[in-house]
Amino acid sequence: MDLTVAIAGVGNTGSMRAAPESITDLGARAAVEALRDAGQTTTPSVDAVYVANVYGGSVIGQRIMRQVGLTEIPIVNVENACASGSTALHEACWAVSSGRYRKVLVLGVEMLSSLGSGTLPLDEEDYEVRQGVTMPAVYAMRARRYMHDYGVTEKDLALVAVKNRRDGAKNADAWIREEVAVGDVLSSRMIADPLNLLQCCANTDAAAALVVTDVETARHSPETPVRVAGSALTSGRFTNKSRDMTWLDVSERAADRAYDMSDYGPSDIDVVELHNPFTIAELIYSEVLGFAEPGTGSDLVRDVLDGDNSHDVPAINPSGGLLAKGHPVGATGVAQVVEIVRQLRGQAGEGQIHRAMVGLTHNAGGGIWGYDSAAAGVHIMSVD
Amino acid sequence: MDLTVAIAGVGNTGSMRAAPESITDLGARAAVEALRDAGQTTTPSVDAVYVANVYGGSVIGQRIMRQVGLTEIPIVNVENACASGSTALHEACWAVSSGRYRKVLVLGVEMLSSLGSGTLPLDEEDYEVRQGVTMPAVYAMRARRYMHDYGVTEKDLALVAVKNRRDGAKNADAWIREEVAVGDVLSSRMIADPLNLLQCCANTDAAAALVVTDVETARHSPETPVRVAGSALTSGRFTNKSRDMTWLDVSERAADRAYDMSDYGPSDIDVVELHNPFTIAELIYSEVLGFAEPGTGSDLVRDVLDGDNSHDVPAINPSGGLLAKGHPVGATGVAQVVEIVRQLRGQAGEGQIHRAMVGLTHNAGGGIWGYDSAAAGVHIMSVD
Repeated sequence: MDLTVAIAGVGNTGSMRAAPESITDLGARAAVEALRDAGQTTTPSVDAVYVANVYGGSVIGQRIMRQVGLTEIPIVNVENACASGSTALHEACWAVSSGRYRKVLVLGVEMLSSLGSGTLPLDEEDYEVRQGVTMPAVYAMRARRYMHDYGVTEKDLALVAVKNRRDGAKNADAWIREEVAVGDVLSSRMIADPLNLLQCCANTDAAAALVVTDVETARHSPETPVRVAGSALTSGRFTNKSRDMTWLDVSERAADRAYDMSDYGPSDIDVVELHNPFTIAELIYSEVLGFAEPGTGSDLVRDVLDGDNSHDVPAINPSGGLLAKGHPVGATGVAQVVEIVRQLRGQAGEGQIHRAMVGLTHNAGGGIWGYDSAAAGVHIMSVD
Repeated sequence: MDLTVAIAGVGNTGSMRAAPESITDLGARAAVEALRDAGQTTTPSVDAVYVANVYGGSVIGQRIMRQVGLTEIPIVNVENACASGSTALHEACWAVSSGRYRKVLVLGVEMLSSLGSGTLPLDEEDYEVRQGVTMPAVYAMRARRYMHDYGVTEKDLALVAVKNRRDGAKNADAWIREEVAVGDVLSSRMIADPLNLLQCCANTDAAAALVVTDVETARHSPETPVRVAGSALTSGRFTNKSRDMTWLDVSERAADRAYDMSDYGPSDIDVVELHNPFTIAELIYSEVLGFAEPGTGSDLVRDVLDGDNSHDVPAINPSGGLLAKGHPVGATGVAQVVEIVRQLRGQAGEGQIHRAMVGLTHNAGGGIWGYDSAAAGVHIMSVD
């Protein structure tokens, strides 16, 4: 089935260490901004709402939408761990594309400051978690294996943070806006060897929202409509049984489906926001999404830092990614799409990529280690 | 848009004070039963899964499906408080009806025993909740107003519990299977005046599952397919601004939509499972769904207990409803549908309603008091 949907409005509170408001006010702020951006300056009106959130509690979407003034419509709260945002967008895209709704609001919202500090609470039923296999530990093990297999160094990893912090410094929606040098990264506190503090994303508060409509309706919105050409969601093991832990199978499958659906391939993509909660993740996912050969992801990072744009590769995480924006779990996948929509509209400010016409977002979550409980969502968007 | 979907398989663990297994084992048990019931006796295969759960934690659906052997497909966890189950089914119905999927598994699961006893944890951001307006208190106030407006007595309320406990005693899937008399109800511990303990549903563990397919695919399943003729989900205030608290507007709107969509009206319905967490809820919802005039819901209860079936009204909660089965939040709306499917197939055992051809489920949640944060789902099902 072909998708016939577009994004007609976007809103983003930007990420913060601790939002000054309640989670309902935070979510409402992004929602109202997206509705206004789509041209709804007076009474808001959509046919349904999908809300991505993990830690905000029951009927979070209804609690926020009553403040927005959206009621008496279907409101569905979806949860897929760190991939909740792309899940909500995926559901909205298909609901609109099938003709069920004409106009849908997608909201991602999270207020991690209310949970205190430290790594995210994980399910203690998982025996790996009980043994200390938290997310930083999982990615640290992937990093060690990757370094061993491909001769990549600690400095190569640190450069991923340097690049993202450099780009994040130009992004008004990022909360960590200071550039860092390799030495700063490597001398920061060790979290899970080889990942230092500056190689790990921060817990963050944020909300981001999208107005998704059919292509025809989007034509009447004030801003350039951004077509959603591919929307894929899948589940499964993070790692494939036939490869090692440096290849993240669930994301590859989501990307393959989104590419197939969109008729675009990796070489058509101009700009990417991929899921980089840790430095190693950006290297691996650059490869999994088809932008570099296995083991060569750090070449892309070095080229960017060296100003070498002679290779035909997309700009990866020009927003600074999760390493600069933090990772507001339910909001992350939606905020990525906001960044890409702004790139494709030419509204990305200092971080604008020249002539960006086709963009991709990649969002992955769940699934500690060998368990089949991961989720990944990939969206491909374009402007004519 | 017309719905063209059917339910081809059902599974139900039945409700328990405390399940002897983990929440993942509990959910897997219902899922496997539904898949087998739909004829999938060897390797299970569906195109997507929607999982309704409130308190089980992140990626609960993925954690359960890895045990079932369903992976590498979209798995979406949905949450709408007590209406989560009908929300998951609603999403599944439209996803199948639009041609996006051919076969979808819907699972509702909850393990309230893990939370300890007492009323459900509610959002303390709601100032009403902080003032003690928990769910029993809300329904108690509705009951007092209803008694005042319509001259209904404490005994009338108690009879609702007597009827449901009588019917629940015949239901192998209910965990409270002892009949009670009016005196037992009225002498039980007061929870929120006028609602005694036996007028309130119990916290419960359970899982229930459905296999939803297009109508054509359902024809090849071993059991009689049950068509879903109407599926409506909405949100808003529990009570309408223009009426008092004895009329629950959000449920009326969901019912109106489901009736419209299905071309059935209240007089066509043979059997109903409606959301009765408290005795008063059954009276009010019988009226809101169109089976009795306002203030006359208790006449239906008395007729049932007197064996008077001279009136053209459906059988209401022949399973014993939430008062006998308890209320396993995320599972409730799915278990209601399992009960109706079994009625329409003629497999409801001792509780079978003679010649049941059209059934309705009603599921409501969220929304303390005046807030616009309620959700309600209504489904209408039929066999030829």
